[in-house]
Amino acid sequence: MNNSINVLRILSRVEQLAHCSEQADGMTRVYLSSEHRMANERVLEWMNEAGMTCHVDAVGNVVGRYEGLSPGLPSLVLGSHLDTVRDGGRYDGILGVLAAIECVDVLNAQSQRLGFAITVIGFADEEGVRFQSTYLGSRAVAGVFDAELLQLKDAQGMGLGEAMREFGLNPEKIHEAAMDRQAVLAYMELHIEQGPVLERELLPVGVVTGINGAARYAVTFKGEAGHAGTVPMVGRRDALAAAAEAIVWIENLALNTPDLTATVGAIRALPGALNVIAGQVEFSMDVRSAHDAIREKAQKAIEQELNNLCDRRHLSCHITLLQSTKATACAGWLQAQVASAISVEGHKVRYLPSGAGHDAVMMNQLTDVGMIFIPCLRGISHNPRESVTSHDVQVGCEVLLRFISQFKALGENHD
Amino acid sequence: MNNSINVLRILSRVEQLAHCSEQADGMTRVYLSSEHRMANERVLEWMNEAGMTCHVDAVGNVVGRYEGLSPGLPSLVLGSHLDTVRDGGRYDGILGVLAAIECVDVLNAQSQRLGFAITVIGFADEEGVRFQSTYLGSRAVAGVFDAELLQLKDAQGMGLGEAMREFGLNPEKIHEAAMDRQAVLAYMELHIEQGPVLERELLPVGVVTGINGAARYAVTFKGEAGHAGTVPMVGRRDALAAAAEAIVWIENLALNTPDLTATVGAIRALPGALNVIAGQVEFSMDVRSAHDAIREKAQKAIEQELNNLCDRRHLSCHITLLQSTKATACAGWLQAQVASAISVEGHKVRYLPSGAGHDAVMMNQLTDVGMIFIPCLRGISHNPRESVTSHDVQVGCEVLLRFISQFKALGENHD
Repeated sequence: MNNSINVLRILSRVEQLAHCSEQADGMTRVYLSSEHRMANERVLEWMNEAGMTCHVDAVGNVVGRYEGLSPGLPSLVLGSHLDTVRDGGRYDGILGVLAAIECVDVLNAQSQRLGFAITVIGFADEEGVRFQSTYLGSRAVAGVFDAELLQLKDAQGMGLGEAMREFGLNPEKIHEAAMDRQAVLAYMELHIEQGPVLERELLPVGVVTGINGAARYAVTFKGEAGHAGTVPMVGRRDALAAAAEAIVWIENLALNTPDLTATVGAIRALPGALNVIAGQVEFSMDVRSAHDAIREKAQKAIEQELNNLCDRRHLSCHITLLQSTKATACAGWLQAQVASAISVEGHKVRYLPSGAGHDAVMMNQLTDVGMIFIPCLRGISHNPRESVTSHDVQVGCEVLLRFISQFKALGENHD
Repeated sequence: MNNSINVLRILSRVEQLAHCSEQADGMTRVYLSSEHRMANERVLEWMNEAGMTCHVDAVGNVVGRYEGLSPGLPSLVLGSHLDTVRDGGRYDGILGVLAAIECVDVLNAQSQRLGFAITVIGFADEEGVRFQSTYLGSRAVAGVFDAELLQLKDAQGMGLGEAMREFGLNPEKIHEAAMDRQAVLAYMELHIEQGPVLERELLPVGVVTGINGAARYAVTFKGEAGHAGTVPMVGRRDALAAAAEAIVWIENLALNTPDLTATVGAIRALPGALNVIAGQVEFSMDVRSAHDAIREKAQKAIEQELNNLCDRRHLSCHITLLQSTKATACAGWLQAQVASAISVEGHKVRYLPSGAGHDAVMMNQLTDVGMIFIPCLRGISHNPRESVTSHDVQVGCEVLLRFISQFKALGENHD
């Protein structure tokens, strides 16, 4: 019987899930795979041990319920995802599920029942690796799973609906995974930061203010290839020099705009030879902000600058917006309760946005959401080198447990 | 019997050689291939028709000799190369060989003998495609073929010596290809410009002042990869943003330095994903000038700037000099005689450097060298789209013929 957070148990469970992987020397666990099934079975077992009644829902999520003072009370939903990117890390998603189970385990060990139920969800697909569409698990729970998604095919050509059937799920019953809006009080997700902010400030925990909106672009500059030795500098239409100018400009804009990131991470120069002026360059752009207005203003400025720059250099400029998602705000009342829990546990309250997307984005379609971050080593994520300290896991779980214990639904009087 | 330049014959021969290609839909003719043998056979035939005694020399070059007023006089050497890059053009190299044969044909048709012999060479390998070492043909003629080169292997693992034997050559006799310094008066090469200068100025011909020296680099910047959404702008160690800053700086230096080109043509960002800050970037640099001092000063400045820039951004910087060749000057007395021939033929004299390397670089180890350029369409070369106008071919050959007719060896009195 436990009456406090057992960090070693959490870390041992992290290792057990890490072994539910396509390959032995890294973590790859995609939606509706045999590794997914193995992970679900472990998590069901641990939920059972923690005193929850649990099941795999219609989309493949593991869902456990810990009743409150009386059966059938509305619930505080906790969770995160159980899938990984290819060659991903041990903690991304997983830690949020295991932390939630651990908190329930502590309550159960102390026979504590609260004025609300707790629902813990291990989402089946957040990363979208297999079907190239993210948040399949939380979409279903939030009741916004579009039936057209069933037409998606994986790299082997297997349809999502077919893969669900093979896994033992009935795609026609996906709507049954949706939670009843009236039965949900809020959604709270603990996650690793996947960035360097908390680690730099030596803080074990942070209050997430929201999840940044993001725009993703593919850009192509077309100039004219030519011999690097024979074409004089003046009059060149060098697509790589133009792209370089654009990248410097974009970096500079983001450095000088609070709450904005802008990143060019991928680039390809054609023909791409040492002695040939690049005739064409393709590059990516990723623009994010917690504030949609800031992001949208930056996007306009960047688009205009790229066009001007190409005009000046006599290049053609093709800008394709691949994807654009609005920011998700964490509810103020949930941020306040997380901040209170952090203070009570004796830590400094640090507010920070999330640059990466999380299941909370979809769950916000169903209910108010909040998030708790703990630091990860050098901000590295989506990588087998992803790492956390047991101390930070301990603090994160204590804060989550404190948050649960003190939780007041919106509109309830605070003491 | 001809008494003037026959452009149609030249262009028809260009087409015939274009068919000596590995593939039907482009030109690829590498050293010691069956296509090389086919091309040599055609060229021998045309040399014979033009009244020359000819042979394939010890390294595989085709060599034709047109005697002067008496047998055994020292010779003016004319020529260029018969090999191509992979998927190259019809004119690069080839035109210089065919123009020289045409000029001899005209002299022969008029039974004109000069105060010197003419040697026309179709060099076997200038591009270095097969054994990754350029100028194999002219190296042998200039007497600077290093026996160690015989150890070079092609992509299939066949050694150069073995390939020569298979072609019917004896690698031990390569020294026999070397011309006697005393028997050579000068080397003159007609070539397409492979750049845009003459075409822009609507000139049919130009006097080459020299062949630029060139330095080639591989540069690696190492920073730190990270999530594009979660790592704040300040504190990033973005290798691609740093490379972009470097590329802009390099372009700017070259734009502001007369007689310098500097080109970044190849770039690779790792991991190279839309939502990941580039942790490492590799890029090429190509720096050229007709003046070694200008090039060397620019190289030092670039190396220093790249190091400073990486220090400032907390990146590591690895600069590898892959190759460095000094500039080759075209002899003043040969430039003057080419300029005179251009004037006499009624064209404007335009001096320009060659940004690309040519057999003249190696031949300069043996004798003074000069070059005549004719324009090519939009400066495009090393490409099946390489193109010339028959008018420019005509003018180029007339200038070459005029140069030959007026030629005075160094030290001879000019009229």
